[in-house]
Amino acid sequence: MTATPPTVQDLPGQLPDLDWIADPLRVGRLSQDFSWFSPVLKRDLAGKRADLAVRPRTEDEIRAVVAACARAGIPLTLRGTGTGNYGQSTPLHGGVILDMSGYNAFGWVRGGTGRAQAGIRLADFDAQARPQGHELRWLPSTYRSATLGGLFGGGFGGAGSINHGPLAAPGNVLAVRAMTVEPEPQIVELRGPEAMLLHHTYGTNGIVLELEVALTPAVAWTECIVTFDAFDPALEFADRFGSAPGLQKKEVCFLAAPIPDYFTSLADAMPRGCHAVMVLVAPHSEAGMRDMAAALGGTVTYRKTADEVEASHKTLLECTWNHTTLHALKVDKGLTYIQSGFTPARRIEQIKALEAALGGEVMMHLEFLRTKEGAFNCSGLQLIRYTTEERLNEIMQIYRDHGVQINNPHTYIVEDGKQNQLDPAVVAMKRRFDPQGLLNPGKLRSWYAQQPQEAARQTA
Amino acid sequence: MTATPPTVQDLPGQLPDLDWIADPLRVGRLSQDFSWFSPVLKRDLAGKRADLAVRPRTEDEIRAVVAACARAGIPLTLRGTGTGNYGQSTPLHGGVILDMSGYNAFGWVRGGTGRAQAGIRLADFDAQARPQGHELRWLPSTYRSATLGGLFGGGFGGAGSINHGPLAAPGNVLAVRAMTVEPEPQIVELRGPEAMLLHHTYGTNGIVLELEVALTPAVAWTECIVTFDAFDPALEFADRFGSAPGLQKKEVCFLAAPIPDYFTSLADAMPRGCHAVMVLVAPHSEAGMRDMAAALGGTVTYRKTADEVEASHKTLLECTWNHTTLHALKVDKGLTYIQSGFTPARRIEQIKALEAALGGEVMMHLEFLRTKEGAFNCSGLQLIRYTTEERLNEIMQIYRDHGVQINNPHTYIVEDGKQNQLDPAVVAMKRRFDPQGLLNPGKLRSWYAQQPQEAARQTA
Repeated sequence: MTATPPTVQDLPGQLPDLDWIADPLRVGRLSQDFSWFSPVLKRDLAGKRADLAVRPRTEDEIRAVVAACARAGIPLTLRGTGTGNYGQSTPLHGGVILDMSGYNAFGWVRGGTGRAQAGIRLADFDAQARPQGHELRWLPSTYRSATLGGLFGGGFGGAGSINHGPLAAPGNVLAVRAMTVEPEPQIVELRGPEAMLLHHTYGTNGIVLELEVALTPAVAWTECIVTFDAFDPALEFADRFGSAPGLQKKEVCFLAAPIPDYFTSLADAMPRGCHAVMVLVAPHSEAGMRDMAAALGGTVTYRKTADEVEASHKTLLECTWNHTTLHALKVDKGLTYIQSGFTPARRIEQIKALEAALGGEVMMHLEFLRTKEGAFNCSGLQLIRYTTEERLNEIMQIYRDHGVQINNPHTYIVEDGKQNQLDPAVVAMKRRFDPQGLLNPGKLRSWYAQQPQEAARQTA
Repeated sequence: MTATPPTVQDLPGQLPDLDWIADPLRVGRLSQDFSWFSPVLKRDLAGKRADLAVRPRTEDEIRAVVAACARAGIPLTLRGTGTGNYGQSTPLHGGVILDMSGYNAFGWVRGGTGRAQAGIRLADFDAQARPQGHELRWLPSTYRSATLGGLFGGGFGGAGSINHGPLAAPGNVLAVRAMTVEPEPQIVELRGPEAMLLHHTYGTNGIVLELEVALTPAVAWTECIVTFDAFDPALEFADRFGSAPGLQKKEVCFLAAPIPDYFTSLADAMPRGCHAVMVLVAPHSEAGMRDMAAALGGTVTYRKTADEVEASHKTLLECTWNHTTLHALKVDKGLTYIQSGFTPARRIEQIKALEAALGGEVMMHLEFLRTKEGAFNCSGLQLIRYTTEERLNEIMQIYRDHGVQINNPHTYIVEDGKQNQLDPAVVAMKRRFDPQGLLNPGKLRSWYAQQPQEAARQTA
């Protein structure tokens, strides 16, 4: 009698000591992220879910699950805490969710670098690093719950990218420890450019166990809101303060009217109809920031020192980046958003032209940053009054027609989000780390386009 | 019998407790700086000297000298340690040299800021700040002897300007304490933009007593030289590494062939005919820097850790900025130099075009930095095989014709160096701090153009 190959339902029996989650409601929740910001993804991903989830606590437990899945040909989808926006941790073909949030030990801080397990929450990492005089170079607005591995797997950067660029900039992520998906999983340390081949691939080409990242000296950031009566001086302030090399900051977020009105709990600081700039500024740079704001007619309407922020458990960081979208959606369910990257040398001209072309339907939310190469720039997380998918695509095309790069958050395919050709080395890495194509299948088109068997499964 | 007004020779008798210098040789030396880098300035400033010098040790001593000079109408020229290059501390009309190098107490470091008396040497400031976890944001190559007040009065920035821009960028210099030149001198604290009206005016519009500056967390910089066979990849490496936001550095200096050959003591690290890039890099960014260098065919030929640098008393910083010119002049007295500022968005194209147009006669030395507004850029301290003043002016015109800004180091007039219109507020500041026009007369054209009496004296 030949044994039938084990199915996903057999896994808990095979590995009874692990923390399995089979309850359909919980598995359903673990199959989702914040992709519901997009009405397109909400529709396209409806009903997509894992069969089972597991929350490993040790490398041995991860290895046991991975080996079992590899032997049985069961898809594996990695998940941090599900704060992403592209459905990157929603399995398209069932299988097992590998919830990494329990694999979260802090490693060390040495000199200007730190290391931890992938499932560590960014806030926990920062809390460990700060007493040693350092902090993370980038904090997405989701930093309280988001994991380091999740940020690496599907994120860009966040507050701090105005200094250090995105994670993808050389020197930010120094190394990863990664596991292959094979019946006998191997563990490999990748450093430098090779490590970056696993970045922003939605966990499709390797299981990242640990990350080593460069840090930056800790600062007790003061949080301020500066408001303006008009769009142009508000933009000029954000741009000028953001790029000023002598004024130390971690975040500059520009919210054109009427976006500030969505922040009902900050109504005292943001009078109706105002344009607002939210900043995190170093204490010794606050005076210079205020000089600049005053020169452009801005008013500092909100100020909290780092101690006050800590005591209040309320930070402006959780109003910026995609938290802006979240706050707006709480007030108006008819909104969605796009992500855009301006041309550094033409950013102001492009922003003003697009505000003129689409104002009213598209609300300008800009995050100031440095590009991977170091050019000062801003990216947009514009809010859209959603009507139809067709119109949404038209708006993105209007942006492209103005020379602006669109990073489409309405697709779950890695390549379609960036509209870039994928580096063939990324696919080669998948061949090395996931020869059976079990990791998050369906997300990396360059892979399944090369695999007739896989392509057949995609279209099934 | 009416008293004749006291002359400069009467001052030591009036104020016998001060440290006066009357020895003609010493006064002659104190009347000079490194303006001899320019054959034009060497000629134009020949024989210009003070009548007397004084080295005050306290604010009271400064006040006593200033009051006496104001009462007697005697010109006063401020001096740090004479490391400037524009003759800014060479008196055109005799009088007294106020040598500030003895007024040099370190004040304090608090948070990210520090304060000291103007005569402190930058190296001494840094040595005081480092145990408290901070360092200066900019170090000119003359930092061992140059004073903080001198840097503010006639300098630009230096190593570190690649992070924080020039001193002139808002937020770098936070405040100055300054004295007026009047029979009853007043002392005023100026903060923010107002303080900057005394910057880079060669001590013509106020006597700076103390400076408060923003600092940056101390780093144990590793010093490296990377050499290349060809101009283009060396330039690309310097530019790419310099702008990389994830790779922490304090200095990137590009020396096209044949400049490296002038550094005879570094011949082992810089093979004849090579193009070299000298860098100060943070230890955790060294691997990323090496990856970038290797990808462009560069070889790391020299490496010293911060400890090794300290033990050897030899730093690459003293090969960069205008020390490059000094080293070259030691080998070839027929050289001089120019200072140029490229257009950030066109820098590479401009550099290559000018290398093609003038290579051989003009040797490309570039210092990478951020502009006052924060744009990544480089400035040139190109070495010139000097023939005639006419040809030197032609070369500068060829640079301008390529859209490059020339900061002319062959003039001692504040306005002519920058070819900018002077902010009228600078002249207003002089009216407030030096109503009699006694400070370093002849250097600020916008002032003496407004003063018929003064203009007459200039042409006398």
